Amino acid sequence: MGLSEEQVIAVLADVFSSQDPRVILGIGDDAALVHGSQQQILTTDIAVEGIHFRTDWSSAYEIGRRIAAANISDVLSMNGHCDYLLVAATLTGNESIDWIRDLAQGIQDQASEAGAVVVGGDLARSQILSIAITAVGHTDSATRRSGAAVGDSIYLSSLTGWSAAGLEILSRGLSTSGALAARALNEYRAPTLDMKVDFSAATSMSDVSDAILIQGAQMANASQVKFEIKVEDIEALPEFAELSALASEIGGNVLDWILQGGEDHALLATGVNLPGVRIGVVVEGSGISVLRGGQKIEMAPVAWSHFNQD
Amino acid sequence: MGLSEEQVIAVLADVFSSQDPRVILGIGDDAALVHGSQQQILTTDIAVEGIHFRTDWSSAYEIGRRIAAANISDVLSMNGHCDYLLVAATLTGNESIDWIRDLAQGIQDQASEAGAVVVGGDLARSQILSIAITAVGHTDSATRRSGAAVGDSIYLSSLTGWSAAGLEILSRGLSTSGALAARALNEYRAPTLDMKVDFSAATSMSDVSDAILIQGAQMANASQVKFEIKVEDIEALPEFAELSALASEIGGNVLDWILQGGEDHALLATGVNLPGVRIGVVVEGSGISVLRGGQKIEMAPVAWSHFNQD
Repeated sequence: MGLSEEQVIAVLADVFSSQDPRVILGIGDDAALVHGSQQQILTTDIAVEGIHFRTDWSSAYEIGRRIAAANISDVLSMNGHCDYLLVAATLTGNESIDWIRDLAQGIQDQASEAGAVVVGGDLARSQILSIAITAVGHTDSATRRSGAAVGDSIYLSSLTGWSAAGLEILSRGLSTSGALAARALNEYRAPTLDMKVDFSAATSMSDVSDAILIQGAQMANASQVKFEIKVEDIEALPEFAELSALASEIGGNVLDWILQGGEDHALLATGVNLPGVRIGVVVEGSGISVLRGGQKIEMAPVAWSHFNQD
Repeated sequence: MGLSEEQVIAVLADVFSSQDPRVILGIGDDAALVHGSQQQILTTDIAVEGIHFRTDWSSAYEIGRRIAAANISDVLSMNGHCDYLLVAATLTGNESIDWIRDLAQGIQDQASEAGAVVVGGDLARSQILSIAITAVGHTDSATRRSGAAVGDSIYLSSLTGWSAAGLEILSRGLSTSGALAARALNEYRAPTLDMKVDFSAATSMSDVSDAILIQGAQMANASQVKFEIKVEDIEALPEFAELSALASEIGGNVLDWILQGGEDHALLATGVNLPGVRIGVVVEGSGISVLRGGQKIEMAPVAWSHFNQD
């Protein structure tokens, strides 16, 4: 390949350089040395080209932001603050040094916005581009998936569906214009984390990385309750009108986007009088249902999986 | 693929299940929750099939042990103890559930031996099998690469070269028998970590993951000194005779194995009166030299790199 490991590491050390006081020793030794916390949050996610991202759909910068956001979101969903990221990437050798720098800058900017520092990484060569990020955070009081109680309401930190709309525009090859399509494409390419929505009083929480119907069912199972999503609540949201207008424009299914699209990385939480938007209630029973006028709507099963997809 | 994500996750949750008191919340939520430490060590490494391991050379169990050992070794080299591992893997879909279980068991057994717990992970599908591990550890007093001082001696926790000898046997397709060849193959397939060698008084330390000539040069540069490796010191070691006998048997170069082979994951340290085996001295200057009878030996440059290799 044209690039040497030394060249790439020099660029990465430059992009990720930091004087953060939490970091005792950053990139350059066998390992990083940082200040830890009594309750530490640890999570890892791997993203593979062609499955989780496509270089013809997203810029290197957007891919970096997006993968970092997915990891940071898992920390936020524990009612945590993200402190450190480690990045292990496989490169094919066809990437230019500028492309690699942009990827790193995307990770770095998303980390900075969340108050986190990139403290380490590793590079290897492979035929397939992949990026594994580990996020390390802390919390004073973790919110698990298992605390939802009958009588709680179900909330989103913001309405989901924009990322799925963006994905549909890209995968159908639609040429769109207008602010709504642009917003959907932006949200797909670099999701906005809802850092300012205070869900610290939530009884249970998860980030919607796959779909409300998937993470909601997991939370309901962990809590031994049933989640009822109310379509009327969703339709009453101011943003629903916008997303619905986009769905009409391009012939998409707005409820599918909202309930079966995940990569906005909104937070899904239960509790009483939480901020964000209210989309349903927790009742006795098991699983998750979608109701309109008290009647259950059959949703198509979520076919999409990072693991099973061809 | 034949296996569903749910099946694989169920097997992994079983293999990695733990009641360790350091773990507040293990696999199953958005993230793990653990007790952290004031001085936390963080490191990540990614291993790719065909570059770092071959499924026809090593069993799944050996691959798991080997990759876990490589990560844990980076924590040991900071004078640390490894507490937690996170594993992000890409699978091709051609692996059997037994193969995946064995891989996980290898990671789990190596983690247990080092006193660490696997607390999280992620799976994705790719055409290439890859395993990224992040290790989290702690230390009361970190040993960096930068503390070597003129007058220090240079030590290894144990003689390197066995793994390189094993790799040579495999890559030349030699059919060998005998205890020495078996030891070399074992060390290549599942390196032994030198957990009991106390290098806590070292002035600088690194794990030899690439080669003594590479990590030694990095330590010398970080410390602004020169490393002199003395071949007489190496040749006086009792184990040298064994490794040398194996080299004669198969026509290998014993000094190349020792100085340019890395994956034994021995620890390389500087200091005074350390345990392990003494292989040289720290002097004024820069870089690393190999001396015999006070005369510099020219070593072939280390051609091997996980990043540049085709």
